[in-house]
Amino acid sequence: MKILIQDVSVITANSKNEVLCHADIVVTNDTISYVGPTKAWQADFTEVIDGRGKLVAPGFVNAHGHAAMSLLRSYADDMPLMQWLEKRIWPVEARLQPEDVYWGTLLAIAEMLKGGTTTFTDMYFYMDQAARAAAESGIRAVLSRGLVGVGEGAKSGLAENREFIRRWHGQAEGRITTMLGPHAPYTCPPDYLKKVLSVQAELGVPLQIHLAETRDETEQIMAAYGVSPTKLLLETGVLEGPVLAAHCVHLSAEDMDIMQEKKVHVAHNPGSNLKLGSGIAPVPELLSRGITVGLGTDSAASNNNLDMLEEMRLAALLHKGSRMDPTLITADEAVAMATRESAAAVFLPDVGVIEQGKKADLLLLDLRQPHLTPRHNLVAHLVYAAQPSDIKMVMVNGTVVCLDGRLTLLDEDEIIFEAGQRARRLVGKA
Amino acid sequence: MKILIQDVSVITANSKNEVLCHADIVVTNDTISYVGPTKAWQADFTEVIDGRGKLVAPGFVNAHGHAAMSLLRSYADDMPLMQWLEKRIWPVEARLQPEDVYWGTLLAIAEMLKGGTTTFTDMYFYMDQAARAAAESGIRAVLSRGLVGVGEGAKSGLAENREFIRRWHGQAEGRITTMLGPHAPYTCPPDYLKKVLSVQAELGVPLQIHLAETRDETEQIMAAYGVSPTKLLLETGVLEGPVLAAHCVHLSAEDMDIMQEKKVHVAHNPGSNLKLGSGIAPVPELLSRGITVGLGTDSAASNNNLDMLEEMRLAALLHKGSRMDPTLITADEAVAMATRESAAAVFLPDVGVIEQGKKADLLLLDLRQPHLTPRHNLVAHLVYAAQPSDIKMVMVNGTVVCLDGRLTLLDEDEIIFEAGQRARRLVGKA
Repeated sequence: MKILIQDVSVITANSKNEVLCHADIVVTNDTISYVGPTKAWQADFTEVIDGRGKLVAPGFVNAHGHAAMSLLRSYADDMPLMQWLEKRIWPVEARLQPEDVYWGTLLAIAEMLKGGTTTFTDMYFYMDQAARAAAESGIRAVLSRGLVGVGEGAKSGLAENREFIRRWHGQAEGRITTMLGPHAPYTCPPDYLKKVLSVQAELGVPLQIHLAETRDETEQIMAAYGVSPTKLLLETGVLEGPVLAAHCVHLSAEDMDIMQEKKVHVAHNPGSNLKLGSGIAPVPELLSRGITVGLGTDSAASNNNLDMLEEMRLAALLHKGSRMDPTLITADEAVAMATRESAAAVFLPDVGVIEQGKKADLLLLDLRQPHLTPRHNLVAHLVYAAQPSDIKMVMVNGTVVCLDGRLTLLDEDEIIFEAGQRARRLVGKA
Repeated sequence: MKILIQDVSVITANSKNEVLCHADIVVTNDTISYVGPTKAWQADFTEVIDGRGKLVAPGFVNAHGHAAMSLLRSYADDMPLMQWLEKRIWPVEARLQPEDVYWGTLLAIAEMLKGGTTTFTDMYFYMDQAARAAAESGIRAVLSRGLVGVGEGAKSGLAENREFIRRWHGQAEGRITTMLGPHAPYTCPPDYLKKVLSVQAELGVPLQIHLAETRDETEQIMAAYGVSPTKLLLETGVLEGPVLAAHCVHLSAEDMDIMQEKKVHVAHNPGSNLKLGSGIAPVPELLSRGITVGLGTDSAASNNNLDMLEEMRLAALLHKGSRMDPTLITADEAVAMATRESAAAVFLPDVGVIEQGKKADLLLLDLRQPHLTPRHNLVAHLVYAAQPSDIKMVMVNGTVVCLDGRLTLLDEDEIIFEAGQRARRLVGKA
């Protein structure tokens, strides 16, 4: 299989942030085999796509989320975090069945693919169902079984996570990779985290954890252990191996120094952090330390969408406004955060950049829109003005998974119907 | 002309924030003549629209902007305000011709109509061209000639604004209303503002002005006059008549007390304030004083889009996150700010609400989307999850101006072409 995208503009998101005009891109099987000036080719392509008036960018890499919680989108909004969790989210989650997770994950994937997201990161339960959904949909996925280290599920959860990793790591043409998923320092005490580390030593996968999401968490850990959540993880040994830490809103300078030294990766979730009133992560300080910062949506229950264009825009706007400095987080930095850096953050070195030899995970956007006119700067357009519906084609691993707004491997109407029915049942309305 | 929208969900945005299910809406000529339970009708409608699976909401009222600056979208980003103005924006604006303003305004209107905005507010120059564009497009517009009180244009600008108001106020089937447009306290000294007030006394129109947009402005006025910008306006008499103040980011408690007492209306522009690094307006404090706060995009040169869905979302998210309080600016409040309150802010008492007797300015949104599934809460969906492309029909003054993503009264391809050409010439690339 060999696809040519001809005479197109390209945001490469490579380390030089290069933008190309009148470029050709060739995809051979699952890989980008050429990116460069447009030229005359032998006519041996499976398909030729006219790129004029269009823009190619790397598919977005969603570095943090809980996909199946899309079933709880708009179920509980504008309320304090603990009330949100205790009164609304947890009671419904207790009723979730494996098939609910399958359909909820498909719903999330449908939204993400249509919006140009080609990789998502997930931490939830009934993860075989999430993996099944990812495999069928064509998306790339980084999956972990969420672990809570207290209560009856602590031991079985860890056993499940081990089994899940053994069963799914590298499956679906290599599109699925896995992690260990201890939920957070406040739900996984040090003793439990050490058990997780021993499984990590055995399996060699990275670990993802929520870290310093709220001020309450930081105060609670400080009261219980006399150190910050970050330092607690350091002392427990969690930062010795590859780690992705989600949120990282409430960090001290010392915490950030530790993260820099231990090469901790960060998933920044500006939309969810705003909506839940968690605060604003110190992203400029993380970046100035050279820490790898990717971008995530968190779940649709706290966002309430999985639109990485919006997340990228928030990442670019939020720090400028709250610090009163319009030079913070440039459009180039925001694009990198949603693509190249997000891919690095979730330990996928071969996606997130439009470059020869990288996996063919990309989006094609139609620039002929009033809101993308005129075209003074395409990077600024992608960050500050583009809409999900501008994305006309999405490719993952060399396969076209979305074309002209329709999913090629999934039945969108069936997903909307099934997810809607299941959500109504879950909240007691059916 | 009589249109029935049958069996539809409705976000009324009325003062009780009512949401209706299985409702019918009848539009007779330019007015909403029925909103209530679905029922059997005599078949004497010009058109019947099937509302099942769809949502009606008031069209958005964009309370602040500079439409023709859409020609400078993405021309200058991520730079300090004065450098942005002096090096990039002002030199290009000096080259603008009347026809550029016409096409730039049409470009802005095309984007706004497609995104569900049915009224826009404008402060710019060559305003006859802006009014011509508004008249042709079918949109509702609140227009003012921007006035700078120093330099050679001061006197002629005021004369132009007077002429403009006389010529255009109430034109285009009443869709066009006008204001006086003194730019800001730092560009219009008190003596000049008094001249503007004498024209206001003569013509009886409201006045719009930028106020306390940046920290620099506040410091500069304080240094020059010994009072805050708000107090300077109070002392000059500007707050005695109807006033719309845009931005209002840097206000003291005393400033807000003055605004409350003088019933000053505010246009909140969260996207532009973030992008230019101006800061975050104290909207919760304004609302708790009962001050009328509408919502605006500002121009596409500093936003970089005119998407009121995004602006509404920012208004709902920003204050929660920066104050760490998820109960601030609820979804209901955000919808009101973009519709009912924005209409009140720009002195249009008969739009912004879906209610019998109001002008038929509305949008119809298709809920059958993955990102709008499930449907636990339609108001939360509109604020936190909806996308411009979900809007399938837009009506202004009873006329369908956008249907299935296409403008009915404008030639979108021609606008994109003309605006693109003119923008290239303006920045010296053609």
